[in-house]
Amino acid sequence: MQRSRVFLDSGGSSPLSARVADALRAGFADGWADPGRLGTESRRARALVDSSREAIADVVGARPELVHFTASPHDAFARCIAGIHAARRGRHRIVVSAIERDALANAATFVAPHAVDAVPVDQRGHVSIADLNTALQSNDVALAAVQHANQELGTVQRLEDVARATQSVDVPLLVDATSSIGHIDPPAYWDALVAHPADWGGPAGIGILALEPHTRWLQAWPEGDDWAPGGISVPLALASAVALQEREEARHRESERLSALVDRIRAAAAQLAGVDVLGDPDERVPHIVTFSCLYVDGEALLGELDRRGFAVGSGSACVSGTLEPSRVLAAVGALTHGNVRVALHPGISEDDVVRFLVELPDALDAVRTRIGAPRIVS
Amino acid sequence: MQRSRVFLDSGGSSPLSARVADALRAGFADGWADPGRLGTESRRARALVDSSREAIADVVGARPELVHFTASPHDAFARCIAGIHAARRGRHRIVVSAIERDALANAATFVAPHAVDAVPVDQRGHVSIADLNTALQSNDVALAAVQHANQELGTVQRLEDVARATQSVDVPLLVDATSSIGHIDPPAYWDALVAHPADWGGPAGIGILALEPHTRWLQAWPEGDDWAPGGISVPLALASAVALQEREEARHRESERLSALVDRIRAAAAQLAGVDVLGDPDERVPHIVTFSCLYVDGEALLGELDRRGFAVGSGSACVSGTLEPSRVLAAVGALTHGNVRVALHPGISEDDVVRFLVELPDALDAVRTRIGAPRIVS
Repeated sequence: MQRSRVFLDSGGSSPLSARVADALRAGFADGWADPGRLGTESRRARALVDSSREAIADVVGARPELVHFTASPHDAFARCIAGIHAARRGRHRIVVSAIERDALANAATFVAPHAVDAVPVDQRGHVSIADLNTALQSNDVALAAVQHANQELGTVQRLEDVARATQSVDVPLLVDATSSIGHIDPPAYWDALVAHPADWGGPAGIGILALEPHTRWLQAWPEGDDWAPGGISVPLALASAVALQEREEARHRESERLSALVDRIRAAAAQLAGVDVLGDPDERVPHIVTFSCLYVDGEALLGELDRRGFAVGSGSACVSGTLEPSRVLAAVGALTHGNVRVALHPGISEDDVVRFLVELPDALDAVRTRIGAPRIVS
Repeated sequence: MQRSRVFLDSGGSSPLSARVADALRAGFADGWADPGRLGTESRRARALVDSSREAIADVVGARPELVHFTASPHDAFARCIAGIHAARRGRHRIVVSAIERDALANAATFVAPHAVDAVPVDQRGHVSIADLNTALQSNDVALAAVQHANQELGTVQRLEDVARATQSVDVPLLVDATSSIGHIDPPAYWDALVAHPADWGGPAGIGILALEPHTRWLQAWPEGDDWAPGGISVPLALASAVALQEREEARHRESERLSALVDRIRAAAAQLAGVDVLGDPDERVPHIVTFSCLYVDGEALLGELDRRGFAVGSGSACVSGTLEPSRVLAAVGALTHGNVRVALHPGISEDDVVRFLVELPDALDAVRTRIGAPRIVS
């Protein structure tokens, strides 16, 4: 990467630290063998997986033997939803918040076609507990899924209230923690939990599923498969654990620093004409902020900022096909196009953010001028 | 690894070469970003995936755009079988050889419960073409699966005859090439093909699926997922391609050398009392040989050899649970316990094999003596 590039798109991916790179090197040197076999090399690989699992379980607050590595968070959602659903025989519906990740919502629809109920959220992205309670009244509910933090808004759900609702009707609660673990305290209320190592500075290509001892599931996939069909990459598991430890060691200090930087971005963006800053300003993860910009196409603004040396994300921008309006932004009643997500990682300095805030108004003007947008009188 | 350890269990895993380790390092440095996003970092990651795909497609003899990375060969089998089956509406049965991998056979049973027909093989492991033709007579066959080479016997199937049978009734043929690519010429006849980078010296945790342009499939999984839900690890993809190129460059020379070593093992093992050498001695991959030993438990013999510094495999030995008799060995009418699989990788020298052949009779005697096995008069 050129020295001057600033990577502000680290929700779900960020450059690997030296310590994580070292862990990967060690993992490939010592953990290349199949951990499922009997020889010395395999035992060594298995020991690496087991210690990685224990380290992650310790942070998540789960029993090590109930922490499973999966091929990806997507695969964790799909297997977990299918497995719990299968165990809840006689109950079919799945209740989700309106702002769950596509991967989770799509997995729910696949398992329970035409039987997924989306619970609305308020303008800041908090699930309506009243509506959740109503949805849970049906005694046909197999499970509920509510995320810990939203990957676009940054809003942190009030999971204590959510869990009170699900527990009162004995419905298992799946918590998507793919945007929170490593950034804030892990959620205290869940029956199943999914996490994403690449979101906390680990490598991509691996996911985490944790279950509570009381959470029942049935195998809903081919015999012989477990949570990771064909096994996982031992070095990726090891690096995931090391990355989480590294983040946890510095978390309180870093979270304060990044949160203050996000506050500055929120304040500066709010000053710009035709820009709305989204999500809960207080009950949020420290490192994420999204704002939407009137008269702007998200992809165009991303491209403009990219040319100026800043990588940012957008809920509606993705290389695969057309730009679909973000479901999350629609659910909170925001503009669904022209949104920019900034996600900070520990390598981001105050100077990086200051430079970004200098470029942002220019980039926005450039894009608006190019499309001949009307002048905004605020 | 101690200098003296000899790893003879490299079907599906082997130590990484310096060149593959370099590729991994480069991949993690340049390919950490999500290849599905829009910024510069993501474009760089995408370029690495695309060039890896092209390199693998070139060796496999497939169109690059029809070569897909998957989470594992297991996942490739499951998605490919489900996807092709879904596209063959009105046809339900799946025809497989009796010695397909468990992962493939289990995926078939999951997709078509009570409708999987296993075609017998002869004593050397060749599929009976007459029985295959009979199984294909039903006009309810959705697809057929026959492996290229068997992971235990080493036997290479006569795929030209197999493909003639499937083509005559227009049934798509899935070829499991997870034990052949990188060791012999790729198969010339297939409609879908699965390969395993870790088997050719690449890292574990990734699989390959290749399709022919005419092969139809329907999405049989949650919306938004493709062949690898949640994406794959870019460095693992890159290292897979580099490992395959490295193997291919030396393949003809190495295959001759390893095949001669396997011939020596076959000859030496055949001299031992109560030992049967399995598989086709000629139509085989160069690097694999399995023999079964009367009055011996596979796990005990593996442990004995492991203590003496040699890692070997066994069709019936696996860390997860009880030792089940190997389906493959049962299908060829061999002893299903007490079998040892030797799989050579390019790092294995003549001296390693000579040392193994010195230890083997002693190890076998030690295990037999321990359980008080009767003396074998041959």
